[in-house]
Amino acid sequence: MSKFWGSRFNKGTDALADKFSFSIGYDWRLAKYDVRASIAHARMLGKCGIIPRKDAARIAAGLTKIGRQIEQGKFSFDPKAEDVHTNIQSALKKLIGPAADKLHTARSRNDLIVLDMKLYCLDKLNEIIAAITAWQKAIVGFADKNKDVIIPAYTHLQSAQVVLLAHHMLAYVEMLERDKARLYGTLKRTGRMPLGSCALSGTTLPIDRNFVAKQLGFAKVTANSIDSVSDRDFVIEALSDLAILGMHCSRVAEDVILWATREFNFVDIDWSLCTGSSIMPHKKNPDILELIRGETAKLYSHLNEVLVLMKGLPLTYNRDMQLDKPPLFGSVEKIKDMLGLLTKLFAGLKVKEKAIAGRIHDETFFSVDIMEYLIKKGVSYRQAHDTVGTMIKECVDNGRKIADLTLAELKGYSPSFGADVKALLDPKVSVSNKKSLGSTNPALVLREIERWKKIVTLATGGFARGY
Amino acid sequence: MSKFWGSRFNKGTDALADKFSFSIGYDWRLAKYDVRASIAHARMLGKCGIIPRKDAARIAAGLTKIGRQIEQGKFSFDPKAEDVHTNIQSALKKLIGPAADKLHTARSRNDLIVLDMKLYCLDKLNEIIAAITAWQKAIVGFADKNKDVIIPAYTHLQSAQVVLLAHHMLAYVEMLERDKARLYGTLKRTGRMPLGSCALSGTTLPIDRNFVAKQLGFAKVTANSIDSVSDRDFVIEALSDLAILGMHCSRVAEDVILWATREFNFVDIDWSLCTGSSIMPHKKNPDILELIRGETAKLYSHLNEVLVLMKGLPLTYNRDMQLDKPPLFGSVEKIKDMLGLLTKLFAGLKVKEKAIAGRIHDETFFSVDIMEYLIKKGVSYRQAHDTVGTMIKECVDNGRKIADLTLAELKGYSPSFGADVKALLDPKVSVSNKKSLGSTNPALVLREIERWKKIVTLATGGFARGY
Amino acid sequence: MSKFWGSRFNKGTDALADKFSFSIGYDWRLAKYDVRASIAHARMLGKCGIIPRKDAARIAAGLTKIGRQIEQGKFSFDPKAEDVHTNIQSALKKLIGPAADKLHTARSRNDLIVLDMKLYCLDKLNEIIAAITAWQKAIVGFADKNKDVIIPAYTHLQSAQVVLLAHHMLAYVEMLERDKARLYGTLKRTGRMPLGSCALSGTTLPIDRNFVAKQLGFAKVTANSIDSVSDRDFVIEALSDLAILGMHCSRVAEDVILWATREFNFVDIDWSLCTGSSIMPHKKNPDILELIRGETAKLYSHLNEVLVLMKGLPLTYNRDMQLDKPPLFGSVEKIKDMLGLLTKLFAGLKVKEKAIAGRIHDETFFSVDIMEYLIKKGVSYRQAHDTVGTMIKECVDNGRKIADLTLAELKGYSPSFGADVKALLDPKVSVSNKKSLGSTNPALVLREIERWKKIVTLATGGFARGY
Amino acid sequence: MSKFWGSRFNKGTDALADKFSFSIGYDWRLAKYDVRASIAHARMLGKCGIIPRKDAARIAAGLTKIGRQIEQGKFSFDPKAEDVHTNIQSALKKLIGPAADKLHTARSRNDLIVLDMKLYCLDKLNEIIAAITAWQKAIVGFADKNKDVIIPAYTHLQSAQVVLLAHHMLAYVEMLERDKARLYGTLKRTGRMPLGSCALSGTTLPIDRNFVAKQLGFAKVTANSIDSVSDRDFVIEALSDLAILGMHCSRVAEDVILWATREFNFVDIDWSLCTGSSIMPHKKNPDILELIRGETAKLYSHLNEVLVLMKGLPLTYNRDMQLDKPPLFGSVEKIKDMLGLLTKLFAGLKVKEKAIAGRIHDETFFSVDIMEYLIKKGVSYRQAHDTVGTMIKECVDNGRKIADLTLAELKGYSPSFGADVKALLDPKVSVSNKKSLGSTNPALVLREIERWKKIVTLATGGFARGY
Repeated sequence: MSKFWGSRFNKGTDALADKFSFSIGYDWRLAKYDVRASIAHARMLGKCGIIPRKDAARIAAGLTKIGRQIEQGKFSFDPKAEDVHTNIQSALKKLIGPAADKLHTARSRNDLIVLDMKLYCLDKLNEIIAAITAWQKAIVGFADKNKDVIIPAYTHLQSAQVVLLAHHMLAYVEMLERDKARLYGTLKRTGRMPLGSCALSGTTLPIDRNFVAKQLGFAKVTANSIDSVSDRDFVIEALSDLAILGMHCSRVAEDVILWATREFNFVDIDWSLCTGSSIMPHKKNPDILELIRGETAKLYSHLNEVLVLMKGLPLTYNRDMQLDKPPLFGSVEKIKDMLGLLTKLFAGLKVKEKAIAGRIHDETFFSVDIMEYLIKKGVSYRQAHDTVGTMIKECVDNGRKIADLTLAELKGYSPSFGADVKALLDPKVSVSNKKSLGSTNPALVLREIERWKKIVTLATGGFARGY
Repeated sequence: MSKFWGSRFNKGTDALADKFSFSIGYDWRLAKYDVRASIAHARMLGKCGIIPRKDAARIAAGLTKIGRQIEQGKFSFDPKAEDVHTNIQSALKKLIGPAADKLHTARSRNDLIVLDMKLYCLDKLNEIIAAITAWQKAIVGFADKNKDVIIPAYTHLQSAQVVLLAHHMLAYVEMLERDKARLYGTLKRTGRMPLGSCALSGTTLPIDRNFVAKQLGFAKVTANSIDSVSDRDFVIEALSDLAILGMHCSRVAEDVILWATREFNFVDIDWSLCTGSSIMPHKKNPDILELIRGETAKLYSHLNEVLVLMKGLPLTYNRDMQLDKPPLFGSVEKIKDMLGLLTKLFAGLKVKEKAIAGRIHDETFFSVDIMEYLIKKGVSYRQAHDTVGTMIKECVDNGRKIADLTLAELKGYSPSFGADVKALLDPKVSVSNKKSLGSTNPALVLREIERWKKIVTLATGGFARGY
Repeated sequence: MSKFWGSRFNKGTDALADKFSFSIGYDWRLAKYDVRASIAHARMLGKCGIIPRKDAARIAAGLTKIGRQIEQGKFSFDPKAEDVHTNIQSALKKLIGPAADKLHTARSRNDLIVLDMKLYCLDKLNEIIAAITAWQKAIVGFADKNKDVIIPAYTHLQSAQVVLLAHHMLAYVEMLERDKARLYGTLKRTGRMPLGSCALSGTTLPIDRNFVAKQLGFAKVTANSIDSVSDRDFVIEALSDLAILGMHCSRVAEDVILWATREFNFVDIDWSLCTGSSIMPHKKNPDILELIRGETAKLYSHLNEVLVLMKGLPLTYNRDMQLDKPPLFGSVEKIKDMLGLLTKLFAGLKVKEKAIAGRIHDETFFSVDIMEYLIKKGVSYRQAHDTVGTMIKECVDNGRKIADLTLAELKGYSPSFGADVKALLDPKVSVSNKKSLGSTNPALVLREIERWKKIVTLATGGFARGY
Repeated sequence: MSKFWGSRFNKGTDALADKFSFSIGYDWRLAKYDVRASIAHARMLGKCGIIPRKDAARIAAGLTKIGRQIEQGKFSFDPKAEDVHTNIQSALKKLIGPAADKLHTARSRNDLIVLDMKLYCLDKLNEIIAAITAWQKAIVGFADKNKDVIIPAYTHLQSAQVVLLAHHMLAYVEMLERDKARLYGTLKRTGRMPLGSCALSGTTLPIDRNFVAKQLGFAKVTANSIDSVSDRDFVIEALSDLAILGMHCSRVAEDVILWATREFNFVDIDWSLCTGSSIMPHKKNPDILELIRGETAKLYSHLNEVLVLMKGLPLTYNRDMQLDKPPLFGSVEKIKDMLGLLTKLFAGLKVKEKAIAGRIHDETFFSVDIMEYLIKKGVSYRQAHDTVGTMIKECVDNGRKIADLTLAELKGYSPSFGADVKALLDPKVSVSNKKSLGSTNPALVLREIERWKKIVTLATGGFARGY
């Protein structure tokens, strides 16, 4: 038996049509979820007296065996059997005989595939949340290890002010925490059990949908059979979460690619994450980070793809919807690799403290500190900004340094200047003087490091309910 | 004063560069939020003694006046002033004089724009939630009014089974409820106050960020200044929510476009939402629905646009990020029109009961009911499916009807058939026989209608916490 | 030897990094082009005296052998060898020994991969052009076979006027001819040979790039070595051509899906391109067309993906660019299947003439004809449009037919009406009366069918240089 | 008169529906093309005797007057008139009276809008080609002015080899030449005149489509009326060309943003194209380049948008297709600004020769030259690569320089080394030694500069027919 629906047809399908429509090439990933779903379904059919209890037990036992084969990689998928459902159905028939013919009672592939996909999402999104937490842990560890390092920070890729490297790192951790919060929201919305919606209208058989939901760990059943088989929101929402997460990965990758250039020279990436050149023997290229940045394009396109797929489709099920799977599987698998690699990256990343130290003494790094010095003395923001702007312009134009200005010269710019302003021309002073919540002040940053250390080691995977 | 940063520069900007970079052409929409943010900020500056209380009061009073002008449409934006912030700053200076120069203390446009955008999102997403609820109400009303109408339902656009029109309508309501749940999640994650992050590192001035947050109704402040100015997740997440919502709109539009064809002939769209032809005097075209379907492409592209914009940007702020605004504003405004029009559509949609009644008697609509009849008699699913498939094929091939088969002929297909099977060949029987939770059973559908009626009239805007 | 660049490195690459960066999983498709490129390169090296002629001959012979293995499916790719180049390099070394070590002289993987990709594109785009022509031929044949059939044509999916089915079919043929023209343009721009650009700056060795170009059938060599290794325009352009072609496929699919509904009932799709239902034994679903419509989303996303990939990449080569391959290969392979299936579709599509004939007599189909009747009598367009609009409205409102109006009643609408206007209420008259170039007039359509018949049978693949 | 189709309707359209569907807010850009098209059409109607010659002349005269008003910015568009066609139609009626009612004979808005859009594209794409040429000219001028400057070139953003800055610049010029070639191809395919296709089927009136085509400068008329009104390929193709062009702009922007960082320090951007900071008085930010990079996202999304819009639309016209305009207009206008700004950028870009000169002496820049030195002495590529790789690794590990190695040490790495190898450790020698066509060899680069100088000053706009 390769297809569920042969009897009505007077002709086989075209071979190219089979190749084009068969999904077993990718939906084998759903096999273990399909088995789990079918065991719950069979038990319900038995419990409700829709099929004999004995048959239900036989089906459950057979599926359990098949499930074990799948997990051990011993189940052989038949590329000539349409999809994952028919593959398992066939195997079951071979294993237990005619009782297998009763499994597909009171359900359709339309509702079954939604259930399989939801079980897959629930499983994989949780794995991704755990992988994010592992990466956060690596970042926090890296921040902690380098907690005294001060680096230039950039806006418009122009160096702006100095900050603690650890403070920069915790920005990544915040971004990732939002990613986890989004994934938790998606998990929650995914958690409604669709089976029993059948083709689209429900069934006349006395099924118990709540029983199936409970067995599979769902909190609720879906409320409308038409919506149940037409809905792919949970796929799109997952792809959106992963696209945003990918965007974050691409930004981290860009930061580190820049920092690893000869020109920035802030960090050394471990050789194990670099590759060389076939023609330039001296090269050490940050390929893995470039690929992470590049794969983000794929994560975006997968999201776009399923949105486009679903646009303007009339209710209920249309075959187009089968094509939600390759993008979902692709994004899930890609992001897991990306997270794994980024975790390794931070575990092995070396900070070139000496080189960086040579970079953070340019006086312009402290222009805001000087401006705020004036503000504290009662000068208005506008005037303070103009004063410091003019002073810097003239220093640059005349090749001078603020540190070398006489007190008279300083007072020429603003009578509010005292000699003490020169103490501000120091990176350590600059970060320490910051006072505001969320700033790069070392004491505050340390407190944040400690806060995050606790979160990322929570047994739960560490979701801070703050977001 | 048209720019915040003139003093350091020895040359004006190029006119085309100004045209290309000025954002006032679209960010005027943020004016009222910018005013609200600045009032809270000024009060904080006064309270903390960073600027004199008198100046703070003067600023707040001036801004309140400007805010009123904006609300009344009397504020005139200067296209030659860079952006919304400089526009308001200039107006304030004109209004209250030098005190205005103290407003921009302890903040940067980098953190201010994030705050403005967050206030905009919080406001607009709540409006959209209310508009969704209004549409749900119209759909529920339409379902209620036509609660006895039975229509063909489709998979693959091939007629499949009969369902209550009301059941189909409630599928839309479910879809929309998920949209609201997503928007609530986005609102929650947007709700962290970024001001005080300044350019990127925080400030040395003794600000009170929690005070600002409280005044503006935020539950929390952001935890990391670098993340605060680099983050555009909330924009992307909002655009993703609206893209999915747009996809739902496009599917509803497609359903109704099909139903309004001469060929389907299920409904009559009110003339006020149709247009005619410049060359074919008889035409009545469902333009509004076509445009709704079409605008979905824009909602998708806006999402893609901001994702692409942000890909690979190094931290912290880059000017590219200014371009998150046109897509966000565009999607917010477009979706609001779409929701308003769809609400009107269902208020005025007429069901052609007679025409539909002529369409739901084809025997194939009841094939699943017959199959389940056999299953109830102990036939396996596989056998029942084959039996009914064969029976239908032979009826079609021989131009016969199941209703006309003799009992002997029926028993030829399956000994389990009795004469009572013919009672199933009736649309009313078909929907009534459905038993499962979430099915099209009239009693269950009625219960759902009542449930939704309550939800959509809740003062809160009706968010069912179920999702 | 698994990597080209081991010597400089003091550590192996990480296993996950290898998995993430190895491209052999997809770029094996380039093997035959890589071999062809390398043979030409080796011959050039020998001819120019850069390596001994004997070595060049040995390399060419070895590669020829490998090329044959590849074509016969006998070459076994090693998943542990980085990419297609290293795979072939390793095989060559095994086959011919040390001489193999000279092959990679005066080239880099940066220029080699561009050459391989260009050879792939030249090959595959030509195959696609041929597949389009085959589909055009099937459409023209279908048009010819049904050349007398008149169908309703639609705007806004509302029936508008009647046209020849063949005329509708030739619209598809026109669309496809533009696709071919675009592909020819892309082929032309792809046709510049990049090898010899080496890593990015050219080489100090006395190579002869034109010799390589000539051997491989390129008209020219690329003019700038930096551009040569940085350029992926040809990939994006190909993906754009295929996305537009996919859009055309999706529109044809939509037309036929609609026509195959019970409601439209214009055509019967061959069973071999349909599938059935696991729960509704009577269903015959147009799955292949739905999947073609759906896969269009993938073609779009592949285009978007490579554009996003390349955005903002600094010159010259970045590793991100490796990721142009999966989208290109994916689109090429998908579109070929789509074209093959659509060719089969039209070969087996049956027109339900009788059902259609019952649909084309509604008088509104002829409103434009009546309007033009008045215009020919000197009535202005505006007045004629209003007259016919009013007449139709009143007929509909009063349940009357134009055919039943008395001459007096007709003249009441416009004195220009004569009794002969009623002759226009006939589908055959309607199409025959059309006169303009490009219209649905049967004589003109026949002429077009004959024109296309010639084009699609040209040995060249039939590109009409008109576009 | 605000709508063409009122007579059949018994109810006005809804105000929100009008707002949502009216296109005059953006399609006013088509006014001058609409006028030009209508003049040609009116003349044809007169010539063919379809309307009196006197009326045709009156219409043409009236439209000429309106055309002049439009060009002078004196035409006032009525936001309450549906679209550009109704606006002009109304103005014409006011101007010349009843004769105006004859203009819309033998055409529909369906074919008219395609003609307007094609005229717009032909006009604007030619302007863009000219703007590209102007930018190329600026780049060539910049290259010429700095023709002796040697810079580091990068792969993977890791410095790789040295090249002439001019050589790098000419890579940009090549990219842009391909852009022009693509635009020329699009222009060619756009050049078929659609008017006379009417709603979809042609007309019974004796029109002369070739006459209209000739007047408007089209080489041909479209061949199929259904295709004519359904086709938006030319819009998508233009958007694809502009997206690729935008990608090129974004890459140039990224190069210059990097070069303008304090870390790279290669160039100084003119102040007129930079902006400052509201909080950091010292900042000089490359905002214009960041915005150019950012706007690329919009160009991509516009392409995606129209592709998505058109997916799965049944033939012929659907109202969704109206929405092709905002993306097209948006991309055309944005790219023109981008090209103008980039032209200015290169006109004012200053090269920091001294700073760069300090960067090009690292010995690793010459590793390929050394490798090829060995190859010239008969060493195999593989061995040469390993030898140089090992030598560099040991030098780095031991803090030594190749320049300081003794001859014996050199020979220890390879007996083929002579003392002359040290001459290669010089940037000037490195570029001069390059020999291959398309390489960075100064003589070849100079020849290329001269070639391009001629091309970009050609009266034709300078399209090198090479691509």
